[in-house]
Amino acid sequence: MSEITAHGEKKLVLATGRAHPELAREIAKELGTDLLPVDAYDFANGEIYVRAGESVRGTDAFVIQAHPAPLNNHLMEQLIMIDSLKRASAKRITVVSPFYPYSRQDKKGRGREPISARLVADMYKTAGADRIMSVDLHTAQIQGFFDGPVDHLMAIPLLADYIRTRVDADNITVVSPDTGRVRVAEQWAERLGGAPLAFVHKSRDLTVPNQAVSKTVVGQIEGRTCVLIDDMIDTGGTISGAVQVLKNAGAKDVIIAATHAVFSEPAAQRLSDSGAREVVVTNTLPLSASQRFPQLTVLSIAPLIARAVREVFDDGSVTSLFDGNA
Amino acid sequence: MSEITAHGEKKLVLATGRAHPELAREIAKELGTDLLPVDAYDFANGEIYVRAGESVRGTDAFVIQAHPAPLNNHLMEQLIMIDSLKRASAKRITVVSPFYPYSRQDKKGRGREPISARLVADMYKTAGADRIMSVDLHTAQIQGFFDGPVDHLMAIPLLADYIRTRVDADNITVVSPDTGRVRVAEQWAERLGGAPLAFVHKSRDLTVPNQAVSKTVVGQIEGRTCVLIDDMIDTGGTISGAVQVLKNAGAKDVIIAATHAVFSEPAAQRLSDSGAREVVVTNTLPLSASQRFPQLTVLSIAPLIARAVREVFDDGSVTSLFDGNA
Amino acid sequence: MSEITAHGEKKLVLATGRAHPELAREIAKELGTDLLPVDAYDFANGEIYVRAGESVRGTDAFVIQAHPAPLNNHLMEQLIMIDSLKRASAKRITVVSPFYPYSRQDKKGRGREPISARLVADMYKTAGADRIMSVDLHTAQIQGFFDGPVDHLMAIPLLADYIRTRVDADNITVVSPDTGRVRVAEQWAERLGGAPLAFVHKSRDLTVPNQAVSKTVVGQIEGRTCVLIDDMIDTGGTISGAVQVLKNAGAKDVIIAATHAVFSEPAAQRLSDSGAREVVVTNTLPLSASQRFPQLTVLSIAPLIARAVREVFDDGSVTSLFDGNA
Amino acid sequence: MSEITAHGEKKLVLATGRAHPELAREIAKELGTDLLPVDAYDFANGEIYVRAGESVRGTDAFVIQAHPAPLNNHLMEQLIMIDSLKRASAKRITVVSPFYPYSRQDKKGRGREPISARLVADMYKTAGADRIMSVDLHTAQIQGFFDGPVDHLMAIPLLADYIRTRVDADNITVVSPDTGRVRVAEQWAERLGGAPLAFVHKSRDLTVPNQAVSKTVVGQIEGRTCVLIDDMIDTGGTISGAVQVLKNAGAKDVIIAATHAVFSEPAAQRLSDSGAREVVVTNTLPLSASQRFPQLTVLSIAPLIARAVREVFDDGSVTSLFDGNA
Amino acid sequence: MSEITAHGEKKLVLATGRAHPELAREIAKELGTDLLPVDAYDFANGEIYVRAGESVRGTDAFVIQAHPAPLNNHLMEQLIMIDSLKRASAKRITVVSPFYPYSRQDKKGRGREPISARLVADMYKTAGADRIMSVDLHTAQIQGFFDGPVDHLMAIPLLADYIRTRVDADNITVVSPDTGRVRVAEQWAERLGGAPLAFVHKSRDLTVPNQAVSKTVVGQIEGRTCVLIDDMIDTGGTISGAVQVLKNAGAKDVIIAATHAVFSEPAAQRLSDSGAREVVVTNTLPLSASQRFPQLTVLSIAPLIARAVREVFDDGSVTSLFDGNA
Amino acid sequence: MSEITAHGEKKLVLATGRAHPELAREIAKELGTDLLPVDAYDFANGEIYVRAGESVRGTDAFVIQAHPAPLNNHLMEQLIMIDSLKRASAKRITVVSPFYPYSRQDKKGRGREPISARLVADMYKTAGADRIMSVDLHTAQIQGFFDGPVDHLMAIPLLADYIRTRVDADNITVVSPDTGRVRVAEQWAERLGGAPLAFVHKSRDLTVPNQAVSKTVVGQIEGRTCVLIDDMIDTGGTISGAVQVLKNAGAKDVIIAATHAVFSEPAAQRLSDSGAREVVVTNTLPLSASQRFPQLTVLSIAPLIARAVREVFDDGSVTSLFDGNA
Repeated sequence: MSEITAHGEKKLVLATGRAHPELAREIAKELGTDLLPVDAYDFANGEIYVRAGESVRGTDAFVIQAHPAPLNNHLMEQLIMIDSLKRASAKRITVVSPFYPYSRQDKKGRGREPISARLVADMYKTAGADRIMSVDLHTAQIQGFFDGPVDHLMAIPLLADYIRTRVDADNITVVSPDTGRVRVAEQWAERLGGAPLAFVHKSRDLTVPNQAVSKTVVGQIEGRTCVLIDDMIDTGGTISGAVQVLKNAGAKDVIIAATHAVFSEPAAQRLSDSGAREVVVTNTLPLSASQRFPQLTVLSIAPLIARAVREVFDDGSVTSLFDGNA
Repeated sequence: MSEITAHGEKKLVLATGRAHPELAREIAKELGTDLLPVDAYDFANGEIYVRAGESVRGTDAFVIQAHPAPLNNHLMEQLIMIDSLKRASAKRITVVSPFYPYSRQDKKGRGREPISARLVADMYKTAGADRIMSVDLHTAQIQGFFDGPVDHLMAIPLLADYIRTRVDADNITVVSPDTGRVRVAEQWAERLGGAPLAFVHKSRDLTVPNQAVSKTVVGQIEGRTCVLIDDMIDTGGTISGAVQVLKNAGAKDVIIAATHAVFSEPAAQRLSDSGAREVVVTNTLPLSASQRFPQLTVLSIAPLIARAVREVFDDGSVTSLFDGNA
Repeated sequence: MSEITAHGEKKLVLATGRAHPELAREIAKELGTDLLPVDAYDFANGEIYVRAGESVRGTDAFVIQAHPAPLNNHLMEQLIMIDSLKRASAKRITVVSPFYPYSRQDKKGRGREPISARLVADMYKTAGADRIMSVDLHTAQIQGFFDGPVDHLMAIPLLADYIRTRVDADNITVVSPDTGRVRVAEQWAERLGGAPLAFVHKSRDLTVPNQAVSKTVVGQIEGRTCVLIDDMIDTGGTISGAVQVLKNAGAKDVIIAATHAVFSEPAAQRLSDSGAREVVVTNTLPLSASQRFPQLTVLSIAPLIARAVREVFDDGSVTSLFDGNA
Repeated sequence: MSEITAHGEKKLVLATGRAHPELAREIAKELGTDLLPVDAYDFANGEIYVRAGESVRGTDAFVIQAHPAPLNNHLMEQLIMIDSLKRASAKRITVVSPFYPYSRQDKKGRGREPISARLVADMYKTAGADRIMSVDLHTAQIQGFFDGPVDHLMAIPLLADYIRTRVDADNITVVSPDTGRVRVAEQWAERLGGAPLAFVHKSRDLTVPNQAVSKTVVGQIEGRTCVLIDDMIDTGGTISGAVQVLKNAGAKDVIIAATHAVFSEPAAQRLSDSGAREVVVTNTLPLSASQRFPQLTVLSIAPLIARAVREVFDDGSVTSLFDGNA
Repeated sequence: MSEITAHGEKKLVLATGRAHPELAREIAKELGTDLLPVDAYDFANGEIYVRAGESVRGTDAFVIQAHPAPLNNHLMEQLIMIDSLKRASAKRITVVSPFYPYSRQDKKGRGREPISARLVADMYKTAGADRIMSVDLHTAQIQGFFDGPVDHLMAIPLLADYIRTRVDADNITVVSPDTGRVRVAEQWAERLGGAPLAFVHKSRDLTVPNQAVSKTVVGQIEGRTCVLIDDMIDTGGTISGAVQVLKNAGAKDVIIAATHAVFSEPAAQRLSDSGAREVVVTNTLPLSASQRFPQLTVLSIAPLIARAVREVFDDGSVTSLFDGNA
Repeated sequence: MSEITAHGEKKLVLATGRAHPELAREIAKELGTDLLPVDAYDFANGEIYVRAGESVRGTDAFVIQAHPAPLNNHLMEQLIMIDSLKRASAKRITVVSPFYPYSRQDKKGRGREPISARLVADMYKTAGADRIMSVDLHTAQIQGFFDGPVDHLMAIPLLADYIRTRVDADNITVVSPDTGRVRVAEQWAERLGGAPLAFVHKSRDLTVPNQAVSKTVVGQIEGRTCVLIDDMIDTGGTISGAVQVLKNAGAKDVIIAATHAVFSEPAAQRLSDSGAREVVVTNTLPLSASQRFPQLTVLSIAPLIARAVREVFDDGSVTSLFDGNA
């Protein structure tokens, strides 16, 4: 006989970069397993070395990495890990990047700009990734930057369910901090039982003649609890300004909700001082002590990612986690 | 001597599919040249045959095609033309698709959906295209679907300049027909001198207690001339409904402006009956007699495309055509 | 332990486009399963939308589509289905196109022609296909257009076995309707027990001095039952003309046999009026009532495709279905 | 100023492998230039080394190689030359393979066969070739194996023009030695003024009852001068046998014409003894003294290739060399 | 139900080219299986034909080929086998090339040289290989030429363990025959218990004034048993010369150890006459009777390859075969 | 006329990242031009933004970047610049990375290691680079990691010519600090008139019985001026240790020469204290004040790069810059 046969078997391994090991450990714990032991360190000039401590041949490998500052380091580490797993004969490699790097540079806003979010997708592919899993992409079109499956998880249900425990749904207005997030605000509004919408925007206020251009609210927010939403908060300037505008325009209360807490300096201070009652985020990015403040609530994204990883491994349905919206 | 030398020379040729020859001829005329003679016909079962009537070796070829219904035919014709030019040794091939096909399917809105706009970009590449030129993509992220240069032309200046000749700029409110176009409405507003914004949206009207969910306006439009904008008008249902909502909410007047007049049945009737004072579009798509109606104004996109083609051929700057916004 | 293990399992799903659902249902029935539920429809401008109704993660997916007119629509639908399955994490995708689109444009007959059959292969690949299954390719070289496995099924055994029940094998001459199919006629002849060959061809008849160029027969057919074969019949002009030539040259009887019944207008009329005793085809393409006529016999290709799909899924042998000739 | 400008210039270089330097020199002479000096030799274990003796940066390089036995050596040498020119910054690389290697393995005749002709096309691409130029491909579909321009030159005009000087056109019958070349025979027939066709084929002769299967002629050749055509002659068995069959069937005379004189042992002896009046070939392959015989006529393909190279370099038209048939 | 499920199963098949069937059979025997039956032969002009005699659908196929002279033939045969297995639906294809072809041409030593070792890696990929397995690559960097897993097996342990049974480890000096193998000599030295190093090199001997440049030894070898190592021995000139230099410089004894016995003429004679006590090699390449000589010892590499193949098939660890050095 | 023609023209632009602007300016000055104005900055979370200030359509663009710590940032900036230039229609893009990033990770030294140097080459390609220019790659094989032209410049002539002005060539011994650089030391020796070689290596000293393993010198260096060479100096540990070993073994004097002055902490201190008379490097990497010390000599690589850029732009010969060794 010119054939040797054996039973097929599937093996899942979880690897993580060094950006946010707590999240990876939490995901592993949810899945009832341990992280792949990986030897990783930096050379003096910044070059990164990684090597798995166990064989990964034939495995279904998930490479978890968060992307806080210094983002390029964490991205390169992840790419090098993918390369090493590919060359070590992993069968399938899934990038797990809860916060997709360079997601804001997703188009040429002006001539001669790069489209770095596409470049990132291409680099994942080049390194050896077969699939990508991410949470709340800055724009959903980024899915189309990758030539392969992208599991796009949504934190809105997680955040919105929490919000509902904190405010009277009947008095909510969902507010987008600029014109680019109104569609997302609408998705929030649906999740919060058909709440009305508003957005903040730099323009002349028609109700006040001869006024100069300034930030104003379009939509009715007077006396209402505003849920000011965004996908990410970086330095917090725009969103803190929006809280002011809402307060000035008569909002009763403001709660900020965002998936990705980038929280670059001086975000913590700004948000804490903004007048918002509460700032709700997830742990897609690690937060140091100095990035935290009293009004901050951090919800864990780990259970959601763990469930999605399990569905992917089991050939189940990630879509079903979101009522058909993934 | 083991070398033969010759002067380098560049040759531009314009080829067109059969979807909208008038536009191609207009572009050629602007450029002071003729279209490449092409033999193109359909076999009885729908297969398309194309063949250029002159040598195209070493040329900088632009393959112009419009994409009205039946869109798939026009797309395949363009792909086959690209293949034939590639195999006939054209040096560089630029797709000129003023209305980008399948631009609305640019993301997975739900699980298991295709991303057909990315597929189209990949098919252009596979057929042999080096570059793409298009007008007012449904979302700017589509630029990132193509691995190469995309010249993204904008019709807003053309349309807005015309609008300014028709209405008093001080009384304009720019209105988005849904939550997804508010950012674009903002670009219009800037072009129209800082006009205020509004959008139409399905929700409860907070000013009327106990009201059911219905289409309402967010933003102030009472007594104002509303410029209701969109990138494309297909069957015209949403936009005609928005005119009604605006009128009911006290708008003085409504002008509709959109780049791509898809005008599927019964768009012409709906728009004509909608109550809008004028409907302004461009000729990125051909319009038959039955798609036209009294209030319709069609501006030609040909001069803009011709200038862009010339800049591309001359290694000039397309960006400069839009004050740094291309 | 840093690994989760599970048993490997294979899942076969059959998806179909809207061109010829009967054939797909027949294949599914042969396999004892149902078709994947798919939501598919056309937008007003011809853009196609598809979405599977169930998870397809990890499946061995077969995307069945027939390609009658309007062929480009059916091709695009199939490509978009492939894209959606790829992005939905199907493990392997096999195109099942019984009639390969654009198979006649398989070479540059003249300078500057496209090679659309290669373009189609590349588009299947680009969309995400891993494998192709087809029946009686116009030329076998098309297998080489695809960079991957092509299962080339043959309908000749099916058709020939039927023919043998209808005529006396000793009196058959196999006739090619032109010079390009003589090799295929030879394969038929072998299958029919070593029958002699002939072909129809435009030339001077040497037996009649001074005659102008016209269609003549090369080979002996007088008093014989001619089995006039082809891979496809489109408008039926050539083949009906060949029947006349054969009759005029003294053929006793003519039976037409072809795999692909394209039957563009006015094929049905022409064939019915041609004088052929019987026209035998398969159902690789759907036939409407107006495409049928009294002398027509349609054999089902579904059992053959079903067996091949099963062999592919089971890692069996498709070659064995054809005595080593696939 | 942040730009340095210079005049564009094109430079053509001709490189050749070691298989058939006479042909390359002849081509160079026709073009009025010299061959690129190349250092090429074999290591003891058969590995090949090549290196150009002059800079080739920015050149339009044509890599001429013939493919007689030992074919694999010559193919590898050509591939390594292409790799070296690519890495040495040649601007464009055109493969010139007058006899395309492995052209007979252009499909899977049986299951599990390779498609080596496609593999060759892919290897040319992988090594760095941008274009291919070849003469009389075994099947025209091989053009579609390469993803880029293929200049398919035809020797039929050259051969046919010569034949016309040797025989009375009115008495010619063009004969294909098997069922697979009847289409090509038809092209010859057109070139020779509408001559009738015939082919040789293994079958029962209907005119002789109870006869066993043997080689017979289909078509009328009695008393006529048969031009027995093929694209290549390898060991000469089939074609020599065909001469016998034609003679036995009453042919007055036989002339053999083929493009590629592979002439493996014992072709020369067989052809010389076959009874054919003349054997006409081209020099796409080198012929040693032992491969020659009295009835052999060798026409040079160099002028045709030289003209095509010049057209390619000058962005002229190769198609025009063949009245629209390339 | 729209799904058919089945158990996953893995099947290993071993195929071999015709260069060194003994090695392949030995590997198969170690694995307790038979070789895949393959029909392989050469056409008269050197073109190679291969076809597997059994279905290989879904298999994990290993394509074993050795690369002695005529190397290009063996390489092409292996590539064509890979193409045929890919098109026959093998699931995964691993190249097993114990002696990697063209490994010496791994960089541009001078301008305009090819990098043939990279070209070979790309051709393996193009043909359809997913993985490569090789023994003692000329430079380890060749691993990086392939975009996928490379299992780099090492014969040093095998050779060194044998050497230890033949000489007193305390008296060994490991000698590199030139400056390029000193690093490898160091790995040998470690394996042999920290033996000292030396290398042979063309220079002025500083201990002898006014001497011309000649081969000298750097390092202390007087009175010691020199283990002269290399990865391959081709014509044996360098290594035989090195034996002389060592002897002249006072070495007590010389043993040559190399992985790849290329042994081109006149290697056998040279090595036999060199004065070396023993020449130890492996059977990565076949050796004819005329390539053997009394002092030659050939160790079998088959057990090592067999174990590696098994680990690859079982998703075990190849690294573990070498204490973490693979 | 269906063609517009124009003269071809070539335009060179030099762009630089922010890692080492002095070097880029020096190169530009040598070429008599200015750098392309580029707007580049970091977002708070480390994401990089770049945009050229002028049109780059049709240009031959060189993207200069140095790679000191934090290396990943500089690498990402260069990749993003390449992406932006590609999308802005640059005609050809050449990476100029004098110190190639991750060049030390050029092979799998152990199982499961990445090959980051190949990954870097692939990322350059993915981003849009057509060519690479670098200086003294860690191993020459890295050229083979890129699928395209690599201009490998050598600083040895520059450094050696300087060394010759500083020491008596007759008394030089060239020393490699470990076993991996002996081949390079030999190239130095040739450049320095056939100087003898030595290397430092951890082993037992045979001249001292019972001694433990320690660093010793192989080769004669007593009383001689040692030129201790390396391609790069990172933390300086190995090379400083080698100076000690050489001094202890009786070297008269030590001069260190290396191309790339990575100089991570505490290299400056170590080198200054090492006892070496002089440390000669080039400016392929920027050096801050704290990285400098009295014995340091920095030679500029800018003239060499400028000449190479000019040759590349002019289609001249880079090889000629190195007497046939590039």
